[in-house]
Amino acid sequence: MDHYYAVILAGGGGTRLWPMSRSDLPKQLLPLVEDTSMFRVSIERLAPLFPVEHIYVVTGERFADKMRADAPELPAENFIIEPEGRNTGPAAALAMAVIGQRDPDATVALLTADHHITYKERFRAVLNSAFNVAQEGYIVTLGISPSMPSTGFGYIRRGELLSETDGFQVFHSLNFTEKPDPQTARQFLRSGEYSWNSGMFIWRADLAMREFKRQQPVIHDLMAAYQQSVDTPKATAKLAELWSQMPRVQLDTGVMEGAERIAVIPVDIGWSDVGSWDALFDVLDLDVDGNGFRGSSPNRIVVDTKNSLVYSDKLTVTIGVENLVVVDTPDVLMICRKDRAQDVRKVVDLLRETEQDKYL
Amino acid sequence: MDHYYAVILAGGGGTRLWPMSRSDLPKQLLPLVEDTSMFRVSIERLAPLFPVEHIYVVTGERFADKMRADAPELPAENFIIEPEGRNTGPAAALAMAVIGQRDPDATVALLTADHHITYKERFRAVLNSAFNVAQEGYIVTLGISPSMPSTGFGYIRRGELLSETDGFQVFHSLNFTEKPDPQTARQFLRSGEYSWNSGMFIWRADLAMREFKRQQPVIHDLMAAYQQSVDTPKATAKLAELWSQMPRVQLDTGVMEGAERIAVIPVDIGWSDVGSWDALFDVLDLDVDGNGFRGSSPNRIVVDTKNSLVYSDKLTVTIGVENLVVVDTPDVLMICRKDRAQDVRKVVDLLRETEQDKYL
Repeated sequence: MDHYYAVILAGGGGTRLWPMSRSDLPKQLLPLVEDTSMFRVSIERLAPLFPVEHIYVVTGERFADKMRADAPELPAENFIIEPEGRNTGPAAALAMAVIGQRDPDATVALLTADHHITYKERFRAVLNSAFNVAQEGYIVTLGISPSMPSTGFGYIRRGELLSETDGFQVFHSLNFTEKPDPQTARQFLRSGEYSWNSGMFIWRADLAMREFKRQQPVIHDLMAAYQQSVDTPKATAKLAELWSQMPRVQLDTGVMEGAERIAVIPVDIGWSDVGSWDALFDVLDLDVDGNGFRGSSPNRIVVDTKNSLVYSDKLTVTIGVENLVVVDTPDVLMICRKDRAQDVRKVVDLLRETEQDKYL
Repeated sequence: MDHYYAVILAGGGGTRLWPMSRSDLPKQLLPLVEDTSMFRVSIERLAPLFPVEHIYVVTGERFADKMRADAPELPAENFIIEPEGRNTGPAAALAMAVIGQRDPDATVALLTADHHITYKERFRAVLNSAFNVAQEGYIVTLGISPSMPSTGFGYIRRGELLSETDGFQVFHSLNFTEKPDPQTARQFLRSGEYSWNSGMFIWRADLAMREFKRQQPVIHDLMAAYQQSVDTPKATAKLAELWSQMPRVQLDTGVMEGAERIAVIPVDIGWSDVGSWDALFDVLDLDVDGNGFRGSSPNRIVVDTKNSLVYSDKLTVTIGVENLVVVDTPDVLMICRKDRAQDVRKVVDLLRETEQDKYL
């Protein structure tokens, strides 16, 4: 494990969990499922597998202080600060450049900061296997067994079996498909050949740089130019200069879809992208009535309440209600029927259109 | 009208509109129906009928400053401050003693600070008629036509017709009945002979003192002793001294049930005691979907929401919900199904039992 690294890509924003997630307080900084932030949970579930020196974070300056406070055990130099968000492609390339410079034999797992994983031990086991497969020159992805024909995820099609290791089957990956239409999604589910793309990739840093060179030469050249400045006094200035020329590219579509030698390990780790309020019902510990209560105040009075989720930091009283999502923040109160959680996006759009940015 | 006075009994507390109404912020101080407090509304609806010098308020010291601020046009000496709450009997007797001392020919309407009246002009008209009837030595009550067999109100039975005046029929009152059981309430409603006791009484101050003397001699004697001190420098000290011996007596049961020569004027003034959250649906201006929104923030986003009442001072978003009462205060959030509003009382009881007084 001497050359194995984990990188948590934690620079993203998002408003699907509005009004709790905001532009300056994204999902990964919220204690949505456990008692600490999703970012902190992401760090902690890696701890048994990596020395803290091998856990990296890529994020932007505006979230960096909160993340440093959330993960004080990580070395300062393991926080890689993007001068500006340019999507996951440049973020991944930057991490590979920095880690590859420090350890040319590095193999790196690109992981997420805002996804839930229920079975943490199995996650670490499959990650360990993926690192070993990655030594053979594969980009290894963790494939999530789809539970429904979702149109919100990318899909990965399995090809021939490459190997079995530690109880996990490793398949050659035939292709990536970005978010399909409903009919295609149903075909994928029926075929049994597809996994959801979890966005977790494990590959050698040198292979990563080669793939960027082949498919995203602009990103590659900028990061190759940066590599010589890593850990020098000029690093920050140099990165800022180069980053201004950085294109916006998504890792999945810009690199993975066209990559060679991709392997997929289908696995059930109780994964959820926690992409909407109703998704939280699947990952929270609910009480016997199907209710979940979260927030800093332990005070609540619950009378005949079912299948409801309440995020509130003050005394909250519910009487005779069911199937509700209640989110109370200092400046916004939202009460949404559980099966209408997707409509939160429309509310966010409306706020954007009407320039009520203070609520975003 | 030279000797006609209105007294607003505004000293009461109550928690049926918890969590908005609190021990230090009772219902009458809240802008529940209109844009100003119910107390302020009570003052304003009297204004066309009385000079401000003839409008009195009885309350306790802890609410007095807020009420003075709410009704700055009233003379300072028209705020009669009870040293301590001893229920409505002593409050009424105190008002009668003070006003009777200042004007021995006074006729006084005892009114409430926390009830809603939709038809204000008709209210003033019936009040005017009641004053005239009171000159003939009657205690005149305004009787509300019952809309359902409520067990929450007292009832007044009509006897023979005494007179008709300005379009209002005045009846001799046969008896008062305090909150009946459901079966009795249904009989009352069917008989057509009963009105709800609105708690509004109009009578001459000298008659009032005689009724107290006959039925509540302790109260009478204390207030007779106080009367000589009214408007002297010793008034406050004297009242405090006498008040410590004052029994707790309800006006309805302690005086009205045993009073002679009671007249009732049945009238529809769109009266509501606003005794629970669901009662507000009947008195608020609702939108086409049956929703009512109140609070200091004009900001709300309403998606597919029906028959719901929201009291909130911040941006509130409702999506796909119906038949809800939502009350957001700085330290408590309540979400209650409309037809369960009576259960708020149980929550208040629970808070009291568990000594969570800060929420009461």
